[in-house]
Amino acid sequence: MLKDKQDAFGHGMLDYYNGTRTALVIERDDGYFEPDVGLQQYFAEYRDWHPDERKAMRYARGRVLDIGCGAGKHSLYLQQKGLDVVGIDSSPLAVEVCRLRGLKDARAMSVTQISPRLSIFDTVLMLGNNFGLFGNPDRARRLLRRLHGMTSRRGRIIAQSNDPYRTSSPDHLEYHERNRQKGRAAGQIRLRVRYRKYVTPWWDLLLVSKEEMADILDGTGWRANVFIDAEGAPYIAILEKTRR
Amino acid sequence: MLKDKQDAFGHGMLDYYNGTRTALVIERDDGYFEPDVGLQQYFAEYRDWHPDERKAMRYARGRVLDIGCGAGKHSLYLQQKGLDVVGIDSSPLAVEVCRLRGLKDARAMSVTQISPRLSIFDTVLMLGNNFGLFGNPDRARRLLRRLHGMTSRRGRIIAQSNDPYRTSSPDHLEYHERNRQKGRAAGQIRLRVRYRKYVTPWWDLLLVSKEEMADILDGTGWRANVFIDAEGAPYIAILEKTRR
Repeated sequence: MLKDKQDAFGHGMLDYYNGTRTALVIERDDGYFEPDVGLQQYFAEYRDWHPDERKAMRYARGRVLDIGCGAGKHSLYLQQKGLDVVGIDSSPLAVEVCRLRGLKDARAMSVTQISPRLSIFDTVLMLGNNFGLFGNPDRARRLLRRLHGMTSRRGRIIAQSNDPYRTSSPDHLEYHERNRQKGRAAGQIRLRVRYRKYVTPWWDLLLVSKEEMADILDGTGWRANVFIDAEGAPYIAILEKTRR
Repeated sequence: MLKDKQDAFGHGMLDYYNGTRTALVIERDDGYFEPDVGLQQYFAEYRDWHPDERKAMRYARGRVLDIGCGAGKHSLYLQQKGLDVVGIDSSPLAVEVCRLRGLKDARAMSVTQISPRLSIFDTVLMLGNNFGLFGNPDRARRLLRRLHGMTSRRGRIIAQSNDPYRTSSPDHLEYHERNRQKGRAAGQIRLRVRYRKYVTPWWDLLLVSKEEMADILDGTGWRANVFIDAEGAPYIAILEKTRR
C-alpha cells in the first residue's frame, strides 16, 4: 500500500475528480520520461472506452474482483449492471475516489495481498495493462495459482497486456536488450509514477507478448481462450480454467 | 545552445511534426513534476490561439525578432502577413522544425547571444512565457538594455509572463518562499525539460507580476504601455521606449 507522499496515482485522481485537468508522469529507470495517457482515461464513461474494453465487459459475470481498480471506471460500470464488485487498489486515495463515485466495496490493498479470505469470485478484472501488476513472471505464476483458489469453477480472468515487441522505438528496443542482459523479462519495465511532488516507489510493470503470457499461464490452471485485439500492441486475454 | 542529448524541446517538436502526439515533461528543482501544455500548443494555427495571443499580433510591425520561436507559430503567422521575421531559439531541432515549416530566417541562438549585429528590429516577440527566458531580474535588465540598442525608435517588445502569485497551490507558494529565503526572485523557477531520454540542463524561468515587471523595466529605456490580460495569471505586456 502506498503512503500518502508516494500516492501519485491517488493524488492525481483526486485532483482530477475535483476538477484539475492534467496527467501523471511516468519515469522509467533508464531516464526515459513520458506523460501518462491522461487522467481523463481513468474516468471515461463506457461510451468513450476503447471498443476492446467494451467487448471485454461481456465476459464479466457473477461476483467480480477488479485488481488495480483505479478511479473505478470498470467496477462502477459492472456494479451498475447489477454485478457484485470488489475493487482493490494499492492507492488509498484512488480507493477513496472510487467510494466518492459510489463504488460500494473498494479496498486499499496490493495485488500481493489478495487471498480467498476476500471472497470467491467468478470474474477477475485486470484491465488497463493490469496483467502487468504481477510484476515479473515468477510472481505472476504464484498469484495466478492463488487466484485459481479464489475463483469459482467457471472463474475467468479478463487481463490486458501490451506486446512490448510491437514497437520500433530505439529507446524501447534498447531497454528490452538491457533487461535481457540483466536476466529480466524483456518487457519488465521498472518505473515510478510522478504527480506534482508525489512519487511512487520504483515498481515493475510486466508487459508480455501473447506467447509469453501462454508460457506464464502454463501449469497455473489457467489458459487464454479468447483474445480481443482489434489493433496494435495492446490486447485483452480471457483466461479460463483448464480442464483437469 | 542545446546539445542533441539536451534538446528535449527540439526532439519533442520534431516528433510532433512527424506525427507523434505527446507532451514534454517539466521537472522543477523541488521535485515537482508536471506535463507541459502539450506539443500541439507549439503548432496551433492562428484561429486556435488564445484570444490574447491573437490580439498581441496587432502590435507587431516592421522587422520582427521572435525570441524563443519554438516551432515557429508566431513567426510563420507574421511572415505570412508579409513581415520580415527572424526567429531564434536555443534548440537546434526547434530551429530545424521552423525551417521545415517554411520560416525563412531561423537561427539556433540563445537569448544571451543577441546583439545589434543580428539586425535592427521594430518588434521583438517574447510570447508564450518567453519574458521568462531572461532568467532573473539582473539579466532581464541587461538584456532589455541590449534590446533597446537593437530596436528602432518606435521599437516594441511584445512580452508574455505569468503572475506567479495568482495561485493557491501549496506546492507553488512553498516554492516562492524557498526562493525568497535563497535571495532569489519568488517566481524564479529552476527547471529542466524532459522528453523521452532527452533532458535540458537546469535553467531559470522568471515569472513576474506586473509590478515586478515595471520594477525590472525601470531604467532600461522600456515601459509597459498596454497589458492584454483577459483572464487569470498569464498576461501580455506591450513594451515601448520611454521618452528621453
